[in-house]
Amino acid sequence: MVKRGREFLHTPGPTNIPDRILNAMHRPAMDFASPVFAEMAAKLFEDLKDVFQTSSEVFLYTSSGHGGWEGTFVNCFSPGDTVLLPEIGRFGRVWGDMAERLGLKVRRVPGSWRPPIAPAVIEDVLSKDKAHEIKGVLAVHVETATGAISDMPAIRRAMDAANHPALLICDAIASFACVPLPMRDWGIDVVIAASQKGLMLPPGLGICAVSEKALAASFESRSQMEYFSWPQRLKTESYSRFCGTAPEHLVFGLVESLAMLREEGWPQVFKRHTRLATAVRKTVEAWGQAGALEHNIVVPEARADSLTVVRTPEGMNADIIRATARETFSVAMGGSLGDLAGRVFRIGHMGDLNEPMVIGALGGIEAALRVCQVPIGQGGVGAAIDYLAETAES
Amino acid sequence: MVKRGREFLHTPGPTNIPDRILNAMHRPAMDFASPVFAEMAAKLFEDLKDVFQTSSEVFLYTSSGHGGWEGTFVNCFSPGDTVLLPEIGRFGRVWGDMAERLGLKVRRVPGSWRPPIAPAVIEDVLSKDKAHEIKGVLAVHVETATGAISDMPAIRRAMDAANHPALLICDAIASFACVPLPMRDWGIDVVIAASQKGLMLPPGLGICAVSEKALAASFESRSQMEYFSWPQRLKTESYSRFCGTAPEHLVFGLVESLAMLREEGWPQVFKRHTRLATAVRKTVEAWGQAGALEHNIVVPEARADSLTVVRTPEGMNADIIRATARETFSVAMGGSLGDLAGRVFRIGHMGDLNEPMVIGALGGIEAALRVCQVPIGQGGVGAAIDYLAETAES
Amino acid sequence: MVKRGREFLHTPGPTNIPDRILNAMHRPAMDFASPVFAEMAAKLFEDLKDVFQTSSEVFLYTSSGHGGWEGTFVNCFSPGDTVLLPEIGRFGRVWGDMAERLGLKVRRVPGSWRPPIAPAVIEDVLSKDKAHEIKGVLAVHVETATGAISDMPAIRRAMDAANHPALLICDAIASFACVPLPMRDWGIDVVIAASQKGLMLPPGLGICAVSEKALAASFESRSQMEYFSWPQRLKTESYSRFCGTAPEHLVFGLVESLAMLREEGWPQVFKRHTRLATAVRKTVEAWGQAGALEHNIVVPEARADSLTVVRTPEGMNADIIRATARETFSVAMGGSLGDLAGRVFRIGHMGDLNEPMVIGALGGIEAALRVCQVPIGQGGVGAAIDYLAETAES
Amino acid sequence: MVKRGREFLHTPGPTNIPDRILNAMHRPAMDFASPVFAEMAAKLFEDLKDVFQTSSEVFLYTSSGHGGWEGTFVNCFSPGDTVLLPEIGRFGRVWGDMAERLGLKVRRVPGSWRPPIAPAVIEDVLSKDKAHEIKGVLAVHVETATGAISDMPAIRRAMDAANHPALLICDAIASFACVPLPMRDWGIDVVIAASQKGLMLPPGLGICAVSEKALAASFESRSQMEYFSWPQRLKTESYSRFCGTAPEHLVFGLVESLAMLREEGWPQVFKRHTRLATAVRKTVEAWGQAGALEHNIVVPEARADSLTVVRTPEGMNADIIRATARETFSVAMGGSLGDLAGRVFRIGHMGDLNEPMVIGALGGIEAALRVCQVPIGQGGVGAAIDYLAETAES
Repeated sequence: MVKRGREFLHTPGPTNIPDRILNAMHRPAMDFASPVFAEMAAKLFEDLKDVFQTSSEVFLYTSSGHGGWEGTFVNCFSPGDTVLLPEIGRFGRVWGDMAERLGLKVRRVPGSWRPPIAPAVIEDVLSKDKAHEIKGVLAVHVETATGAISDMPAIRRAMDAANHPALLICDAIASFACVPLPMRDWGIDVVIAASQKGLMLPPGLGICAVSEKALAASFESRSQMEYFSWPQRLKTESYSRFCGTAPEHLVFGLVESLAMLREEGWPQVFKRHTRLATAVRKTVEAWGQAGALEHNIVVPEARADSLTVVRTPEGMNADIIRATARETFSVAMGGSLGDLAGRVFRIGHMGDLNEPMVIGALGGIEAALRVCQVPIGQGGVGAAIDYLAETAES
Repeated sequence: MVKRGREFLHTPGPTNIPDRILNAMHRPAMDFASPVFAEMAAKLFEDLKDVFQTSSEVFLYTSSGHGGWEGTFVNCFSPGDTVLLPEIGRFGRVWGDMAERLGLKVRRVPGSWRPPIAPAVIEDVLSKDKAHEIKGVLAVHVETATGAISDMPAIRRAMDAANHPALLICDAIASFACVPLPMRDWGIDVVIAASQKGLMLPPGLGICAVSEKALAASFESRSQMEYFSWPQRLKTESYSRFCGTAPEHLVFGLVESLAMLREEGWPQVFKRHTRLATAVRKTVEAWGQAGALEHNIVVPEARADSLTVVRTPEGMNADIIRATARETFSVAMGGSLGDLAGRVFRIGHMGDLNEPMVIGALGGIEAALRVCQVPIGQGGVGAAIDYLAETAES
Repeated sequence: MVKRGREFLHTPGPTNIPDRILNAMHRPAMDFASPVFAEMAAKLFEDLKDVFQTSSEVFLYTSSGHGGWEGTFVNCFSPGDTVLLPEIGRFGRVWGDMAERLGLKVRRVPGSWRPPIAPAVIEDVLSKDKAHEIKGVLAVHVETATGAISDMPAIRRAMDAANHPALLICDAIASFACVPLPMRDWGIDVVIAASQKGLMLPPGLGICAVSEKALAASFESRSQMEYFSWPQRLKTESYSRFCGTAPEHLVFGLVESLAMLREEGWPQVFKRHTRLATAVRKTVEAWGQAGALEHNIVVPEARADSLTVVRTPEGMNADIIRATARETFSVAMGGSLGDLAGRVFRIGHMGDLNEPMVIGALGGIEAALRVCQVPIGQGGVGAAIDYLAETAES
Repeated sequence: MVKRGREFLHTPGPTNIPDRILNAMHRPAMDFASPVFAEMAAKLFEDLKDVFQTSSEVFLYTSSGHGGWEGTFVNCFSPGDTVLLPEIGRFGRVWGDMAERLGLKVRRVPGSWRPPIAPAVIEDVLSKDKAHEIKGVLAVHVETATGAISDMPAIRRAMDAANHPALLICDAIASFACVPLPMRDWGIDVVIAASQKGLMLPPGLGICAVSEKALAASFESRSQMEYFSWPQRLKTESYSRFCGTAPEHLVFGLVESLAMLREEGWPQVFKRHTRLATAVRKTVEAWGQAGALEHNIVVPEARADSLTVVRTPEGMNADIIRATARETFSVAMGGSLGDLAGRVFRIGHMGDLNEPMVIGALGGIEAALRVCQVPIGQGGVGAAIDYLAETAES
């Protein structure tokens, strides 16, 4: 059956791309060595320092977010170095796998896939690492597989309490531009982001915002690197910054994205995400009153504003709900991953969203739940509507 | 406050324009006298005959829908001619005003603005018109101001019962491509449509599909006309069909629109409209259980599948609800018009729509109703969701 | 054979649409009764007064340019009125035909299709019209069929010399936004324009800019009119200005067009047109040195900056050259019309053009001339290049 | 001064992006784990095997072309391995620099920057490498800095004559989809391409098409790799093929690009490039008759069909000509690089081009040469026009 209307895109990335951004990208390519492009790029890199709140550098990779991961590893560390990985979900797990393939030793702190990172455990491990073998702490800010957001300032405090010099690496792919992340104030050494989430762009840019300390590490790294090398990208030829031809259209789009976020105002961007996320959570809780569905993340404060992960009872395959929502009601959600296979569906709510978009998505999911005969409480979507009405600002 | 996300467009026109159509229009202009354009236009005019189900002609005006009105008057009638107008709402009223300004005599059958056209009244008037002074019957298929759909076959039967030769003119601006309208089978002489409703295009095209009888009338008309003249448009110069430079981009868009409708299949297009309209009506009825809101159209069968008009109690200004929905919840509805000023809000549901789009719009309106403290029954949007779940086809 | 690259569009309308304008039009429709659209439209109408240099009104028709013609006739005149038409080409001729079909009497001053309008003849005719039967003088500013530009101030002076009160109507469809046309200073009562020429938009808007005198006439007109009626369009309902649903996307595009022209600066816009037109003329003259081709317009000052019309010798069908340029070299020109059938090809150079666009078009035409074995002088395109180099400003 | 019209983009990449491709990319993102995207991607990877003419695999990196370079090094070789690099221009040189930074030993065969690769030298070096220390031969097909195209079959024959097992690596970034490159028939092990040249896409995709032998090598590599790893990308999770979120919009664009190339037909694509390139060369030769300008590539057969590099006399800074063409005549060319600094300008003619586009660009450059007072022969652009007329096919 031919579908009509727009699919509601509620995967936890990619997200909705505003028309303004698509239009900014709908233009001819240009001479990337011309003064016009050079000035645009130079201004963009300056702006990005403000946006990421670092006085050091921001690097833009033509890559997926995984490129940001790899770039961080090869620049900050050398083969044989050890990194500490509190593993609270699948993205952390495969991030560690990548580190190993790149020659790092990964000390994993295992965890169940429901809570956020426990700062106390980090403090404990680091305190015992008297030799400072651990060169970096890998923290996923929002674990997209589980829906948990970890407390980055608390992690920083744990590292400080252990008086440990490791770099603090933050995977903010699913949090950046959705929730506050002042990297300098919070003592983060590398923030890894990507274009296709809070920045509302097509996939295609991996981003590393780095502290002075991380940048200095890159000049000491013994990794064999070129494409992802920060020192190479600081050279001054027209192609250095992007290691080859610039991804011009994503640059045009990113310039527009930052203009839009600036116009809305960062505090309002964050407030909007929290408000819409709360509406989603209200509906999930209403559904849950029938006893079948529940938040994957138990502790309310650890529920991310970027996505909401809903747990189904054993024997009720969440992926069927997801397929029904997509095929029958035009709502695309994220599927279950790794240890959570079949046990959760994930509702993304990052980026360019407003009230009726969220309500429509929840309504489509609710209809799918009914079709799949999942017991749900009354007034599911109504709970979101009521909350949005109560918290409306004109 | 800067808004984010897409506004939900639920005015009764213009409607949502699919990306495919916008992309088909995002291209350079071309030589409209070239063989490529000539062939594209020739094929389009042939296709339109099938789409409108006439063996005669379809005319495309570069104009608003009002151009289709005027074109019909000047071609089908001559100054001094009389037309019969059953006035069931504001669009009929101003259509009659136009007729008068163009020199026609309008015999108005007044009515309240809630029921559809009464075929019996038409039969009665025509039966008494032994001299056949009445040259045309003006019937608005879906009266956008009130939400009523009139029974065109019954009107035809009434005319036949009166054995009257008047032309049957159907304003289908708000019904075409939403509900069936087989003009030949139903004995309609002119169907007037416009681009910005069921055809999912930007505004800019007025359309007249005509019967052989109506076309013959145009060659007899004593109206002083050129731009809207059907006989002129049947001449064979490259610019005749459009009386000047063709509105190329709307032609590109219309070609794509027809392709999309053909892919979906006309029966499915109509079925989709009925199903989504029913969902809207279910929610309106749920809201109405608190006693404040009700359908403007009392008889269920006369509620159009194109839009739903909701009536507020005296003293509760419907336009405030509309403004709140638009400004606070990004849902644009149609306002109250003429005799219904302040008493109704109008929810359009024509064109490129799916389930979550409709649910999202209803949710935004429900939130606006709460903000405006309009008493509404429980489970408003939920009623739509439940209905959509029950009637889902995978 | 599949073509690659962009066709060079050098018809005398439609013209090249800049990406900025296409992007401004690539967006959802909106509630045309919303404050956002109302303010956009109100500002646009104010801006248009400046752009057209009238203190009275500018009307935007959803129509072709022919709609602007018809609108002028029905508003400024009444059936039975006489208008004076100096006929210097096919557009004037069919303009007169339209006037007749709308009930006007047309006093035609015949002319060959090479010179511009002769002001002396107008003065002569008007001087003899002691009864002031002539209500309007119809002057085509740039006659697109022949390539002539007429001297509007001289025509005004001729009317003044005859002390005649007729309205001066100027068809500026092929001149507006290409050459100066200060209507108030030049004493013009109606300027008729269209979207698809100097304004760089898709076809779809007819424009009438009117003087106080012309506007006053519209309130006196006995024409039976509605769609094109100026008085109706000055009413204050949300749909009055456009007689129905506004052609929103053309409005979005026109706002962007005016912004672009303002950025470039009107004097620079006119200067650019003159410079590029001169380059075209240089090449035509170089081609002409072989004796076969010549300017259709003999007097250099009467050659329009909007298009250049090139005359072929008898026996050499210009339309074959045009077809060859289009089919074989991807350059679209205008064809021969009316009395000039087969005897001219027309090179448009209005709107969004720069040096290499013009050179490329001339080169494609030169190649077509060679393929068609038309004798041409050496250095054809080179003459344009040399001129553009000599007159370059950095 | 505000510029109008389109800049003529004749850098040797990025190239002109057809509207069809931009439109294919102007759409919402989608769930990359959905069946729709999975099927689209699977079909694309199959199609790419045909396009590249390999029975093994084609890998798409979200990266610049440099990513294709790096991906080839880390997969085909291990740190400490030796590669042979005939250095005929700057792109070869920096390719070698990258190899060294990735831990390879590079045996460079120095050369002047005017001739193509000399197969005899390769045969000589390989013949002496009895121990088969050389693991790969790095051959730039079209050296974008100099304009030379090397004879890949001859290089293959040289390797075979030396009976040497090294992999043959071909940088086809500036040749792919412009000239034939049947990798299997020509015995090439890796073809490296990028999106922004002959494929007419925005920058953002690096491509490696590999032979069975090269693929097998990747499973033996001791490189520490993940992002660029071919074995990792052959895993079957939804994100494996792109190592993370797929660059969806470039995928949409590439699907459209391949459709367009298929419609035109590969033989016609290559023929068109040769014909337009020949036209450019004719003009360069006409200019050269005044003794100042000449082809950088001396041997006619080694002049690439992708770009033409023009050499200026000592003391005449080519970059000033380039800046003048861009700033004053809206034609963007490539600048001089490395050892050729200030001595050449580079005219790209890859991708979506037709006759008037090329003529316009040459005309703008000729005007710039005049402004810069470079002595040029008569009839420069005319030579291209004449050639295109002589070789026209209708």
